[in-house]
Amino acid sequence: MEPVSAAVSAVLPAGGSGERLGGATPKQFCGLQGRPLVSYAVRAMERVSWISDIIVVVSPENIETMKSIIEKYGHKRVTVVKGGITRHRSIFNGLKVFAENQSSNRLLQKPEVVIIHDAVRPFVEEDILLKVVMAAKEHGAAGAIRPLVSTVIASGEDGCLDHSLERARYRASEMPQAFLFDIIYQAYQQCTDHDLDYGTECLHLALKYCKTNAKLVEGTADLWKVTYKRDLYAAESIIKDSLSQQICIITDVKEAVVQAGFLLHESLKNQVKVEAISISLSKNDSHLQNIFSGECYNFLCINDKEYATEEIQKLVDMLEKSNVPLLYPVVLILVHLNISENISFSIGLEELTKIKKFAREVKKKNILVYGLLIQYKKFPLNCYASGLPILSRGGLEWVLFS
Amino acid sequence: MEPVSAAVSAVLPAGGSGERLGGATPKQFCGLQGRPLVSYAVRAMERVSWISDIIVVVSPENIETMKSIIEKYGHKRVTVVKGGITRHRSIFNGLKVFAENQSSNRLLQKPEVVIIHDAVRPFVEEDILLKVVMAAKEHGAAGAIRPLVSTVIASGEDGCLDHSLERARYRASEMPQAFLFDIIYQAYQQCTDHDLDYGTECLHLALKYCKTNAKLVEGTADLWKVTYKRDLYAAESIIKDSLSQQICIITDVKEAVVQAGFLLHESLKNQVKVEAISISLSKNDSHLQNIFSGECYNFLCINDKEYATEEIQKLVDMLEKSNVPLLYPVVLILVHLNISENISFSIGLEELTKIKKFAREVKKKNILVYGLLIQYKKFPLNCYASGLPILSRGGLEWVLFS
Repeated sequence: MEPVSAAVSAVLPAGGSGERLGGATPKQFCGLQGRPLVSYAVRAMERVSWISDIIVVVSPENIETMKSIIEKYGHKRVTVVKGGITRHRSIFNGLKVFAENQSSNRLLQKPEVVIIHDAVRPFVEEDILLKVVMAAKEHGAAGAIRPLVSTVIASGEDGCLDHSLERARYRASEMPQAFLFDIIYQAYQQCTDHDLDYGTECLHLALKYCKTNAKLVEGTADLWKVTYKRDLYAAESIIKDSLSQQICIITDVKEAVVQAGFLLHESLKNQVKVEAISISLSKNDSHLQNIFSGECYNFLCINDKEYATEEIQKLVDMLEKSNVPLLYPVVLILVHLNISENISFSIGLEELTKIKKFAREVKKKNILVYGLLIQYKKFPLNCYASGLPILSRGGLEWVLFS
Repeated sequence: MEPVSAAVSAVLPAGGSGERLGGATPKQFCGLQGRPLVSYAVRAMERVSWISDIIVVVSPENIETMKSIIEKYGHKRVTVVKGGITRHRSIFNGLKVFAENQSSNRLLQKPEVVIIHDAVRPFVEEDILLKVVMAAKEHGAAGAIRPLVSTVIASGEDGCLDHSLERARYRASEMPQAFLFDIIYQAYQQCTDHDLDYGTECLHLALKYCKTNAKLVEGTADLWKVTYKRDLYAAESIIKDSLSQQICIITDVKEAVVQAGFLLHESLKNQVKVEAISISLSKNDSHLQNIFSGECYNFLCINDKEYATEEIQKLVDMLEKSNVPLLYPVVLILVHLNISENISFSIGLEELTKIKKFAREVKKKNILVYGLLIQYKKFPLNCYASGLPILSRGGLEWVLFS
């Protein structure tokens, strides 16, 4: 990704009431795989290194909820701002933290470009964010668009068709949008009460008040806005799909093992999303529990001990507690590095029987346990730099437990 | 539902290629819970008793596929018609079977009103169909509309925003639509090649060629068109939700048991969707297998025999073969009518142990078995007319097997 030579921050209006969803919980706080929708949108922004501050604007009654979400999922660079009674008033409040000293929020560094994105569009990628930011730098304003799915029609006063629009000439205006901060802030400052109360479209404000014709950028289908209950279903399925392509590497705290995990991480990260953590499994680690709370379904545990059923049991307990295996099978691959002087490549029959029995038991809980034995002495650690392919050369043994 | 005093038939264009879905299979043939999307749309039409003929228009290469779907899911009143190269040409072909003798299809009775509906909008309800049909009878044409989710914008030649439309003044034109047959057929007969090739909107043709301003009818959110992959996810989740509210009552063929099933059906049908069938479980019934292929997750089996593990095993085998329990837990309630002279209310301990063990086994396969014992002699059959509530009066015993 090319670097962005501008200070960029983002405002996420998340004050909607979710009327169209037909539920009591506003959609941005609905849980998908146990995690609120807004947390996915925040994470999508956080992943982008060149976005400095992320302002989440929520209605006054949800400020504490939002703060606890930030705490629970370890979000960084996020400021929570109290929203107004309409979408435009909320966005305006979000922008003010860069321009006005306010009692409730400290003044943040004013960005050159500000991204405005919905909290209910969780699948935004860095690519489209970069495109709208670059276009905004050049044109003053920019926004993602999509082809229309349905024909748009105008009705007469009698409730009958007046005319239909030629579909190819029009587009749906979506998010993200980006603006030179000074332009959109000036637009909001000049904005009439009528526009603040009844308008919804930031591009329109930039055009009306600052004569800035926004550059339109073709977006991808996954930018759609979670609006109806069916959209929550769709979002959850997409998240499940993406989770199946993530892996978490867990190593114990011994140096050699940590290094093996690090090298494996390096070589896998171009193919799948990898998270690597190093902890003592006997501790009740909250970071690990977070990952188990619906962030990953595939785990690779590397250690140099004999198969320690007790520690694996702890992992399984945490997984069970997270309820994740109820929704989706969890894959747990145990990698045992044999670092003993004994180069004979085996696991005791009794030990194997025990772990196989264990694997059969946890399979009933939708957790699939596989094992891999690696003769450590034969493979100096730097061999791991080439990643998994090396695992298929000699000197190792796959053990299919379940 | 008020009766429709007009002959009504329906045309379902199903010739799309599904480009936007990003898969090889056109979306109307994608399986949801193992059943193709188009089959759900056809079933939605079939459920409406006042729709005479259902014309499904598919591209030439999919005619055999469509015919086998009709065969497999037992669809009635359906005629398959070869589509043209565009949407309008396909709909025109569909209409022709009511007006012109063709070699490939017999001439069907011309309806007064014809419904046009997409094969990829599977959740259409009788209510909205009735509304558009009645409006079409009065106005000549009618169509369902929905509020716009996104602002619609027009772009200039430079790819920048030209203007945005005031969202409240416009609507998305959706399906179903309905027309006096003579109006829409005349419109298609007069239609230019350009309109046939590039147009997509039937309401527009009725206006342009027959000066008929269609009546616009507010539709519900579930009329949306399955367009992207996420829509397939959403549709599948909605189907799962609805399946959980369906129940299939299975009785053996003995008169008294069949009658009990019938009365239970009558009293339950206002609360849930009920299907009742009476078969000998020892036979390999294809109707039962169809129901097991993703149409229902809840089964209530009534019999007057001692708990016959062998027959229950057959049910479980069929369920397993259907793969349904992989997707969703299946609930199987066994109701045993005690018709023996012996009024003592019990099940042998040995028998109970056996069935409990069986239930524990099948629970691992995601099939939950529950049992209900009913003292038949104490409850004359007409007591069942008031349905399940009677089951909570004395004289019965719940057995939670698993």
